[in-house]
Amino acid sequence: MMTASEVRVRYAETDQMGVAYHANYLVWCEVGRTDLIRHLDITYAEMERQGVRLAVADAQVRYQASARYDDVVRVETRLTSLRSRLLTFRYDLFRVPEPGAFEGERLATASTTLISVSSEGRPVAMPRHLRDILGQALLGSD
Amino acid sequence: MMTASEVRVRYAETDQMGVAYHANYLVWCEVGRTDLIRHLDITYAEMERQGVRLAVADAQVRYQASARYDDVVRVETRLTSLRSRLLTFRYDLFRVPEPGAFEGERLATASTTLISVSSEGRPVAMPRHLRDILGQALLGSD
Amino acid sequence: MMTASEVRVRYAETDQMGVAYHANYLVWCEVGRTDLIRHLDITYAEMERQGVRLAVADAQVRYQASARYDDVVRVETRLTSLRSRLLTFRYDLFRVPEPGAFEGERLATASTTLISVSSEGRPVAMPRHLRDILGQALLGSD
Amino acid sequence: MMTASEVRVRYAETDQMGVAYHANYLVWCEVGRTDLIRHLDITYAEMERQGVRLAVADAQVRYQASARYDDVVRVETRLTSLRSRLLTFRYDLFRVPEPGAFEGERLATASTTLISVSSEGRPVAMPRHLRDILGQALLGSD
Repeated sequence: MMTASEVRVRYAETDQMGVAYHANYLVWCEVGRTDLIRHLDITYAEMERQGVRLAVADAQVRYQASARYDDVVRVETRLTSLRSRLLTFRYDLFRVPEPGAFEGERLATASTTLISVSSEGRPVAMPRHLRDILGQALLGSD
Repeated sequence: MMTASEVRVRYAETDQMGVAYHANYLVWCEVGRTDLIRHLDITYAEMERQGVRLAVADAQVRYQASARYDDVVRVETRLTSLRSRLLTFRYDLFRVPEPGAFEGERLATASTTLISVSSEGRPVAMPRHLRDILGQALLGSD
Repeated sequence: MMTASEVRVRYAETDQMGVAYHANYLVWCEVGRTDLIRHLDITYAEMERQGVRLAVADAQVRYQASARYDDVVRVETRLTSLRSRLLTFRYDLFRVPEPGAFEGERLATASTTLISVSSEGRPVAMPRHLRDILGQALLGSD
Repeated sequence: MMTASEVRVRYAETDQMGVAYHANYLVWCEVGRTDLIRHLDITYAEMERQGVRLAVADAQVRYQASARYDDVVRVETRLTSLRSRLLTFRYDLFRVPEPGAFEGERLATASTTLISVSSEGRPVAMPRHLRDILGQALLGSD
């Protein structure tokens, strides 16, 4: 399963180099991740109400082109690995082309690994039913 | 009582106009407010552990000059009003001059009114001992 | 003219009080302002390429209810005043209700006054054609 | 050469999990990088005025413990590689212990690779004198 999200670059997200500040790409990945989970039979907000929290354990971003103010960025999100405590997501970010333009430029590739933690912050296995729900995103992921 | 805090403008805080993005001034005011409370016999982190939360009910900022990347901004904070549920802080923001320069330029004046809320978000009177502690900041406020 | 924008509250925008951090409301107002201008015959990105920059000179926010993670926030934006160098926008922010719910709760009311500045940051009158374009947003504003 | 910077976690930087939002670690790394350059005979602000811009090409963060509101985070920064267009920095982030506590907990390890770009965003070799200045940070780096 792959889900696509679109975010428009805000003025607040630019820096004085005239492009989007690099840390914001991780925020856009979070938007993609939230949307992927929403496409399953649950939301991340609901997961938290059930006592499961996903903390980011590792993040990697390779930047290829700069997103600019008012660009629409398309975030394609995939769940690439699911274990009892750990999930890995991959993100492909593109600039959505202006109407009539040929194709979107690749902006970045990223991945994040999240760890399931209790409300006290200790690593815990995710409940079986949540793993089953998340597992749907793995099937056919390519 | 007046407390002074210094923050150095981060690249992340600039925007493509080449200056600090305006919403960040409210973040610097929060740094000033946290420092003022720290100078009393408590920290805001400790207040929260005692179940008191201060939510911002009103914020006003008048911008006079632009803070730039790597500028040191001095935030002077005063508590100007204290009632059972409401506190008002005033902030004067200056650019700290380079060594040898005459005086710091005024960047902005701001005020925020905070309301005491329970952990469920309902307005509640602050406990007596907290109002007494905060009241120390009012005395001699000028 | 009134334009409506929707933003979904990001995890990055929450704070440990469990609600959206107050300074982010100013960012959402910026999204509303950008969208209002886009509905005219220009974009703010294009205005900047023409050498006009709008710096925030004054901002006021009155917070009425807390936006929460994953809420959809509706920002209604109006241009309420237009002079040679100054523009004032008003914003009404609501929580978009869940499907089936009766109506959206008001989250905040805000206003910002912007000043037209040259690329060196000095106040300048806006070019005539830009004022004419922006003036369309005033007509019928209510 | 290793430089150490300290940042205090702001309320704005927390999220509803009650810890610092993960993308902010990259902002703190930027603070460390700016400080390392400041310890040489130049500042990054001055480098930009000379037409050199460093864009982030790759970022990696491994998170080990959560930074919390009001924690003081110590960022130790090292320049680990310097080529004509590329620089790599490594960052070790620790929680500064309370007075009397034994030692600081490790929060994260990170690295970023930056690429020298022209003001139009094209990769360019850094001027010789800048590489010489930056090279001082490599010597004795461990």
